[in-house]
Amino acid sequence: MNMTEKILAEAAGLREVTPGEIIEAGIDLAMTHDGTSPPTIRIFRELMEKGGPERVWDPERIVMVFDHNVPANTIGAAEFQRVAREFAHEQGIRNIYQNAAGICHQVLPEKGFVKPGMVIVGADSHTCTYGAFGAFSTGMGATDMAMVFATGKTWFMVPEAIRVDVTGRLQDNTTAKDVILRIIGELGADGATYRSVEFGGDTIEGMGVAGRMTICNMAVEMGAKNGIMEPNRKILDYVASRTGGKFRVYTSDDDSEYVEEHEFDVSDLQPQVACPHDVDNVKPVEMVEGTHIDEAFLGSCTNGRYEDLKMAADVIGDRKVHEDVRFIVSPASREIYLRALGDGIIETLLRAGAIVCNPGCGPCLGAHMGVLAPGEVSIATTNRNFRGRMGDPSSSVYLANPAVVAESAVNGVISSPQ
Amino acid sequence: MNMTEKILAEAAGLREVTPGEIIEAGIDLAMTHDGTSPPTIRIFRELMEKGGPERVWDPERIVMVFDHNVPANTIGAAEFQRVAREFAHEQGIRNIYQNAAGICHQVLPEKGFVKPGMVIVGADSHTCTYGAFGAFSTGMGATDMAMVFATGKTWFMVPEAIRVDVTGRLQDNTTAKDVILRIIGELGADGATYRSVEFGGDTIEGMGVAGRMTICNMAVEMGAKNGIMEPNRKILDYVASRTGGKFRVYTSDDDSEYVEEHEFDVSDLQPQVACPHDVDNVKPVEMVEGTHIDEAFLGSCTNGRYEDLKMAADVIGDRKVHEDVRFIVSPASREIYLRALGDGIIETLLRAGAIVCNPGCGPCLGAHMGVLAPGEVSIATTNRNFRGRMGDPSSSVYLANPAVVAESAVNGVISSPQ
Repeated sequence: MNMTEKILAEAAGLREVTPGEIIEAGIDLAMTHDGTSPPTIRIFRELMEKGGPERVWDPERIVMVFDHNVPANTIGAAEFQRVAREFAHEQGIRNIYQNAAGICHQVLPEKGFVKPGMVIVGADSHTCTYGAFGAFSTGMGATDMAMVFATGKTWFMVPEAIRVDVTGRLQDNTTAKDVILRIIGELGADGATYRSVEFGGDTIEGMGVAGRMTICNMAVEMGAKNGIMEPNRKILDYVASRTGGKFRVYTSDDDSEYVEEHEFDVSDLQPQVACPHDVDNVKPVEMVEGTHIDEAFLGSCTNGRYEDLKMAADVIGDRKVHEDVRFIVSPASREIYLRALGDGIIETLLRAGAIVCNPGCGPCLGAHMGVLAPGEVSIATTNRNFRGRMGDPSSSVYLANPAVVAESAVNGVISSPQ
Repeated sequence: MNMTEKILAEAAGLREVTPGEIIEAGIDLAMTHDGTSPPTIRIFRELMEKGGPERVWDPERIVMVFDHNVPANTIGAAEFQRVAREFAHEQGIRNIYQNAAGICHQVLPEKGFVKPGMVIVGADSHTCTYGAFGAFSTGMGATDMAMVFATGKTWFMVPEAIRVDVTGRLQDNTTAKDVILRIIGELGADGATYRSVEFGGDTIEGMGVAGRMTICNMAVEMGAKNGIMEPNRKILDYVASRTGGKFRVYTSDDDSEYVEEHEFDVSDLQPQVACPHDVDNVKPVEMVEGTHIDEAFLGSCTNGRYEDLKMAADVIGDRKVHEDVRFIVSPASREIYLRALGDGIIETLLRAGAIVCNPGCGPCLGAHMGVLAPGEVSIATTNRNFRGRMGDPSSSVYLANPAVVAESAVNGVISSPQ
């Protein structure tokens, strides 16, 4: 069996599972954010009225993170947060992060909730991020999540697996983001629908925590049920420094079966850009250089980490952001914000003219903090560029790595960092 | 004549003016923000179509500052900013601050636009802030501002004047904010309607730039046409360090006539709180201690300056914000943000659990970045607390100084700093 199958088999109390099989798995951790907590709670209460349990199955295994609309940008957003807060208090859910602690997918690993071998579900599509830690993790809707709240279990169809091996040493200014964009460009936005994507190869093995999270984070952009990687030393050190208890590391057997196997040599890879309006419309940055931009965004669960902020600050140096470009920076967590502040990165970005916002999802989904006007163009370190994602339906989004975004912010046009 | 009359007489090319007289005055500086630029521009264009000028009277004397909805929180806000940006480029208005440089009333003095003796109009009611520098400054609507854009002139009725003398040394944790709240509590929210409020006395004479701005800023909350103070050494040093050219300092003649004269001895003044839902519903903090709060906001053109952030950080120390309180901090400008960052103030606030947002007006007017849900309560360093100001019509706002706001954020209830 492969990693994913082994984790699911263990969670279902089975010795073996096979792709296509429906299993009922125990959940190690469930996450909801400010946008998805209230609908989950509403359905949980409906279940309760129909005879379901009055208490969640395990308040210690539920984490709520407010990140999508923080601080509240509307009365409705504030009301949503109140509903979640009151439910958490009522149910004894202590792990609630209300005040811009960060984006859920950053906060969970940082606060020590994520360990290899876990089954993690989240009411957010980018829950697949935790595959970077060798966990099985996937997003689900509020109805399924309400059942998890009630029972601690859910059903999965065991996914078929795709193996992606990445080899070669990345060049300067080419990053994990470029690797995953290259892969998505090749496999397509529907290239892994309901499949498990298992990433390996020497590039992945040598990669740090941040880069690995970026790659697994975007597995869902190919339609994957989950993305997963065997934990490396950096992951194990990170987990050891953040969590208490023990965990089990699962690895894929040598005879694991994959419905597809792909290999990417990234030695010569240039920075990649996903062009409007599809995530798989990927081109080398040089093909879109000179494209006018109105906004540049550095942040999100894909690329808002310390390494991303540092790369952007290094690229900018003592230059200034173009006067007609709003360069929005949102660290992915308070911890990252503080670390970047301590290292002078925040100061560099502020002096350059960046708008440094509090941690959160903000502009990535066009919620607030940088919404695009009709016809405007953004280049962003985020994960989605479908029509209207960041604002008006006639606006456009280019996805790129932090170096490309920072260089473009300075020049006012899409640019390749030197 | 008093200061205001002398400035207006000079601007109107008259040797003398008297209260009630209608004059036409030349404008030294006109300001619009992201919310008021588009309506001003629309009317300017309508005037143009009716034969008005095609160019603004003087692009060097117009300043645009985007602060109310920065970064854009909606498609409409982004579109408003684009309209302003395009007009500025078309008209050669170089002084446009698009990217969270700060709140207009902080940016104008910082960037050296404000000097004693000037006539400054702004399409924002708190334009009266610049009275702290011995300027005549007042807010106006978009129609009047469009005429200023076109002609560089406007009409005023010369206001009657009220003299307010403040004496005595303020105690620790009692500030300029408490002084102006005390005054408004006494004179009432309509106590100075269309009058000039001239502040003096030894307390005002000894006060720093930040405190003087706080007091003049809130003159409009009594309905005043303007608030004004004779420049002191600190103001003159500040202006000298920020601006080039010369200016003239006006002082009130000893025989100036005032329709009212008030004197406040603030030696024993305790921190004051303006309670819901009127700015003149002012009580000593001890009378409202223990009141539950959901949000605390440190910022705004009233109290978002360096001294305010420092006071809050000193009060908090290494304590933590109450878990169910969102403590929102927005420095009034990028310059303040950078200075507070350099001094460790931002780090102290972040470590305490504050949400540090980019400079802007944000939650003060319930625009975004901390909107209140139904029934919620905020304590804020801002200037207005009418029903629904910061969110839902059933929410409430208490106005206080930065020390009271910070102490309340820690305790989750309105509290007096020790």
